[in-house]
Amino acid sequence: MAKPQVLILMGSDSDLPVMEKAAEVLQEMGVAYQMDISSAHRLPDKTAEYAKNARERGIEVIIAGAGMAAHLAGVIAAHTTLPVIGVPLKSGALAGMDALYSTVQMPPGIPVATVAIDGAKNAAYLACSILSIKYPAIAKKLESSRASTRKELEKKSAQLQKR
Amino acid sequence: MAKPQVLILMGSDSDLPVMEKAAEVLQEMGVAYQMDISSAHRLPDKTAEYAKNARERGIEVIIAGAGMAAHLAGVIAAHTTLPVIGVPLKSGALAGMDALYSTVQMPPGIPVATVAIDGAKNAAYLACSILSIKYPAIAKKLESSRASTRKELEKKSAQLQKR
Amino acid sequence: MAKPQVLILMGSDSDLPVMEKAAEVLQEMGVAYQMDISSAHRLPDKTAEYAKNARERGIEVIIAGAGMAAHLAGVIAAHTTLPVIGVPLKSGALAGMDALYSTVQMPPGIPVATVAIDGAKNAAYLACSILSIKYPAIAKKLESSRASTRKELEKKSAQLQKR
Amino acid sequence: MAKPQVLILMGSDSDLPVMEKAAEVLQEMGVAYQMDISSAHRLPDKTAEYAKNARERGIEVIIAGAGMAAHLAGVIAAHTTLPVIGVPLKSGALAGMDALYSTVQMPPGIPVATVAIDGAKNAAYLACSILSIKYPAIAKKLESSRASTRKELEKKSAQLQKR
Amino acid sequence: MAKPQVLILMGSDSDLPVMEKAAEVLQEMGVAYQMDISSAHRLPDKTAEYAKNARERGIEVIIAGAGMAAHLAGVIAAHTTLPVIGVPLKSGALAGMDALYSTVQMPPGIPVATVAIDGAKNAAYLACSILSIKYPAIAKKLESSRASTRKELEKKSAQLQKR
Amino acid sequence: MAKPQVLILMGSDSDLPVMEKAAEVLQEMGVAYQMDISSAHRLPDKTAEYAKNARERGIEVIIAGAGMAAHLAGVIAAHTTLPVIGVPLKSGALAGMDALYSTVQMPPGIPVATVAIDGAKNAAYLACSILSIKYPAIAKKLESSRASTRKELEKKSAQLQKR
Amino acid sequence: MAKPQVLILMGSDSDLPVMEKAAEVLQEMGVAYQMDISSAHRLPDKTAEYAKNARERGIEVIIAGAGMAAHLAGVIAAHTTLPVIGVPLKSGALAGMDALYSTVQMPPGIPVATVAIDGAKNAAYLACSILSIKYPAIAKKLESSRASTRKELEKKSAQLQKR
Amino acid sequence: MAKPQVLILMGSDSDLPVMEKAAEVLQEMGVAYQMDISSAHRLPDKTAEYAKNARERGIEVIIAGAGMAAHLAGVIAAHTTLPVIGVPLKSGALAGMDALYSTVQMPPGIPVATVAIDGAKNAAYLACSILSIKYPAIAKKLESSRASTRKELEKKSAQLQKR
Repeated sequence: MAKPQVLILMGSDSDLPVMEKAAEVLQEMGVAYQMDISSAHRLPDKTAEYAKNARERGIEVIIAGAGMAAHLAGVIAAHTTLPVIGVPLKSGALAGMDALYSTVQMPPGIPVATVAIDGAKNAAYLACSILSIKYPAIAKKLESSRASTRKELEKKSAQLQKR
Repeated sequence: MAKPQVLILMGSDSDLPVMEKAAEVLQEMGVAYQMDISSAHRLPDKTAEYAKNARERGIEVIIAGAGMAAHLAGVIAAHTTLPVIGVPLKSGALAGMDALYSTVQMPPGIPVATVAIDGAKNAAYLACSILSIKYPAIAKKLESSRASTRKELEKKSAQLQKR
Repeated sequence: MAKPQVLILMGSDSDLPVMEKAAEVLQEMGVAYQMDISSAHRLPDKTAEYAKNARERGIEVIIAGAGMAAHLAGVIAAHTTLPVIGVPLKSGALAGMDALYSTVQMPPGIPVATVAIDGAKNAAYLACSILSIKYPAIAKKLESSRASTRKELEKKSAQLQKR
Repeated sequence: MAKPQVLILMGSDSDLPVMEKAAEVLQEMGVAYQMDISSAHRLPDKTAEYAKNARERGIEVIIAGAGMAAHLAGVIAAHTTLPVIGVPLKSGALAGMDALYSTVQMPPGIPVATVAIDGAKNAAYLACSILSIKYPAIAKKLESSRASTRKELEKKSAQLQKR
Repeated sequence: MAKPQVLILMGSDSDLPVMEKAAEVLQEMGVAYQMDISSAHRLPDKTAEYAKNARERGIEVIIAGAGMAAHLAGVIAAHTTLPVIGVPLKSGALAGMDALYSTVQMPPGIPVATVAIDGAKNAAYLACSILSIKYPAIAKKLESSRASTRKELEKKSAQLQKR
Repeated sequence: MAKPQVLILMGSDSDLPVMEKAAEVLQEMGVAYQMDISSAHRLPDKTAEYAKNARERGIEVIIAGAGMAAHLAGVIAAHTTLPVIGVPLKSGALAGMDALYSTVQMPPGIPVATVAIDGAKNAAYLACSILSIKYPAIAKKLESSRASTRKELEKKSAQLQKR
Repeated sequence: MAKPQVLILMGSDSDLPVMEKAAEVLQEMGVAYQMDISSAHRLPDKTAEYAKNARERGIEVIIAGAGMAAHLAGVIAAHTTLPVIGVPLKSGALAGMDALYSTVQMPPGIPVATVAIDGAKNAAYLACSILSIKYPAIAKKLESSRASTRKELEKKSAQLQKR
Repeated sequence: MAKPQVLILMGSDSDLPVMEKAAEVLQEMGVAYQMDISSAHRLPDKTAEYAKNARERGIEVIIAGAGMAAHLAGVIAAHTTLPVIGVPLKSGALAGMDALYSTVQMPPGIPVATVAIDGAKNAAYLACSILSIKYPAIAKKLESSRASTRKELEKKSAQLQKR
């Protein structure tokens, strides 16, 4: 198995149904990844270790998904200078608005690249965009993924026009 | 100087004008405190240390104030079982609503006792309420503080009635 | 039966499914509690009595859960200097955002320790944290509860890694 | 001096600049009123007394203004069956949205007639509308007040047309 | 059949399931009412007529329920000096927050007594409170309604205590 | 003076500083307009008349600006089938969010073409776009207005590049 | 088949169930339309082409529906001076509030005529209002559509009165 | 002058005071950049060109700042597979909440790495994190920048402790 380039972390196993969509996209794009559970609140030391060791382990991008007072991405970003992508998850009474604010409103110096609420797919596409500046093969795969999305949409458009 | 019972932490020195109101109340109530800057994002290891050592150092309540994606109180709560009071601070475009959600919407197991946005005074009064279950003298001081608030308000009421 | 240390109040019997999670946590932690219905609006005098007599009855923490214009925790806090924990409940069109604001935005002098919307479990854990400053046994139980949470999460992490 | 028909209460003397606009309208409409400070949180017993005795003292409408977790109107409504008008006041980081939700989202059985944030004038006009079902003279005054508002606006319209 | 004292209007027949709860409360309280559909947008002239003629027809309170950009209560208030109670209804993507703002944020001079989102019951109780300043019998009925609510709640409290 | 094609109405003379920007754009585009004050709440009959007679007077587009519970555009749309453009105005504690919801969330059958909060300029540009489907000269003017905006922006871009 | 006067675009085929309500209204009103899928993000060049060529193809109004960060209407408006109607669609965690803000808050010079969230029907009625300034037959159809709506509502009102 | 690695675009020259903070950080970090104005709405073709040509021109990250219905970052992301960082800007009545939603809530396939409202500094730090996976020198500079931030904060902490 290839050494992982992307690390996908989530705060709870209940986040898996959303977060594994990120894994699926990475698999499709041929990017090796590791996926684990590591809560900022319930496993803070493990989370800090993950972040501190990531770069020397060969990780190039970290994706972190969490709901409610979603501190996971921010806590990881505090311990690494690698690009950290935050996925605010929809859960609880505030339906992810709390997670969005907790993820995106980071103070100067410690950025989190935030995607849409439950936007695990886009977290993976963003990870590929980031990797694409270094690996031309990933840039090509992104281009062909977009081309096939366009074709699919054009087919749907053609069907609608025929109705 | 007395050993501090309450630890007041804030994420940035710009939070001092609000957070020192907590210190003033504690001073008034005769409760020894330590006040320091310790960002969850910019000084994560120091913050974790503060939380981990607090109980054995004799700290009984921790007050943490932070703005925007306010992770400070949650990160501290992750490292201690002492009561942690979070003060969401008003700053930036979302005026503290982001800090409120980032502070109060904690996941099960790691609670933060959240007070109003910029509610540093109430954080201190809440700390005293907590201490009052152990120290009857503080319960008495809280009662007399409330009594003097009532008197003040009754004086203002009397003035308004005279107008 | 042991004399209750924690009083759990709620505004309506419809709040019971959420609020009894607080009771379950307290039971697990070996903390004696009393649970009752006492609306700030429909039983205001009973509510005031509960608050006024709590300390002399041996109550050390009060947990109050209410939805919509959730005044219960605030009204209780007005009548006691004991620590009062407010649980905003999700109900009605605003899904608990109204209850959150009504509970947390207390004026100076009368704090309510607010937890997440529907955060009854955390209200109980927070009550234990508060009691832990006085009762070392509860501090120990909190530590072992956290340790078992960590173990559980690590088991789930191991399972995910194996996939 | 006439026996007051309307009781205007506010939670703090800092609310006076807004709340005295209610008094001005009542004076203009010839309705006797009493205005006082009586906090739901800092003077809860006085507030309950005010509400309980209001009807027998001849009060027919109560106007209550408060900011943040604005419990005043709701607490008064809990103790009287007189019509209670709530004025959510703009203050603090949430600019009155908290006060609006805390005032309007009352549970079934205990209504508060809520007006706009800082809508003290309308609280007084609403009080007059309520009194107008019993006192035809007030109905007439309301009609002539509206007529003069219309005239004023038509004058401004004419000026704009001339430009 | 008695001459109606309260007029209940709603913008659409889809509002009936919520609004008829107001009718049920009035029936219980022995207050005669008329209930009709009259949209501010789709039947503006009928709506204006209803408002203009209400007082001379013997109507003493108008209750108006509407969703989304809920203009009904405001439009009625523009054409009468009777007390107008607005019920913001939950419907559409914004779940009644739009209706709440459209109903409560009235400009000076034209108040709407706003109750909670979907608060049709409280609209009726508020109408009774208003009528109670003129009709002592309604004041009595309100008191006994509250007393029976208290008894019910106390019974539920007793059951919970027994568990 | 030319017969007005566009009618600009506002709820209060305090809205003039924002709404006259619509007039300025129309003047620039050579479109004749009439501007007046006509409140949905304080001058409801005049407002209805304006709307009912607009088409036969030669008006082709109506622009209506109002703040808070902004009913003006909706009330006008209820009385005419002409295109009605609503400008939600920023005022009061909710800073125009109330006006936006009150203007845009219209029920099926009675649309209001809503522009941004305080978007009076865009209301005028939208009016010109609407007129442009009938008057080719206005289409041309819109094109040249956009071209000059582009030029201006390109000049600023060139200046920035030189820095 | 008639040359289309109105172009209905949507960002995804999943938007069809809502957007085809616009088509139904146009059909009812006898207005020829074309409906297609054309995403601002996934088919940006096709979208730009649609907008640039619309006027010369005889299109007179464009309706664009999109959810989440709904850029479709704005991107179209950037490429044409025809009137563009934006329909914010309810989808994802923010339930259309994101789409509403993304559609309505356009900068000066590039207006989008925004209707309610999921307001596809009103988008079509608004398109007809716009066309009505040029085609008197459409004005007549709008009037008779409103008249039949009124009749329907009056029938429902009569049924309610009989109950 | 070095060939730019980062392209900073903004929708208007009024965005410069915020956006040039991104330029300052890049300068400090020794990263060559180009900064320009290019509106998604007023210069759509130039914007599309910028995005389409960026990769072949050697650009590796694009930063886009815009306010209100902030489409700039999304429109750029539609035309390139390079990483695009969006900076929602605070402006207008909704104070950047509209810009945040318009920037972050992107549909699957076209991600925008969103930072805090007015978070131009963090956009630059995030760009450096991204570049750091390819250029070890930038990783080092990020580490030393963080170290000096820590030192500064520790100095402030020491000063506070001395007080």
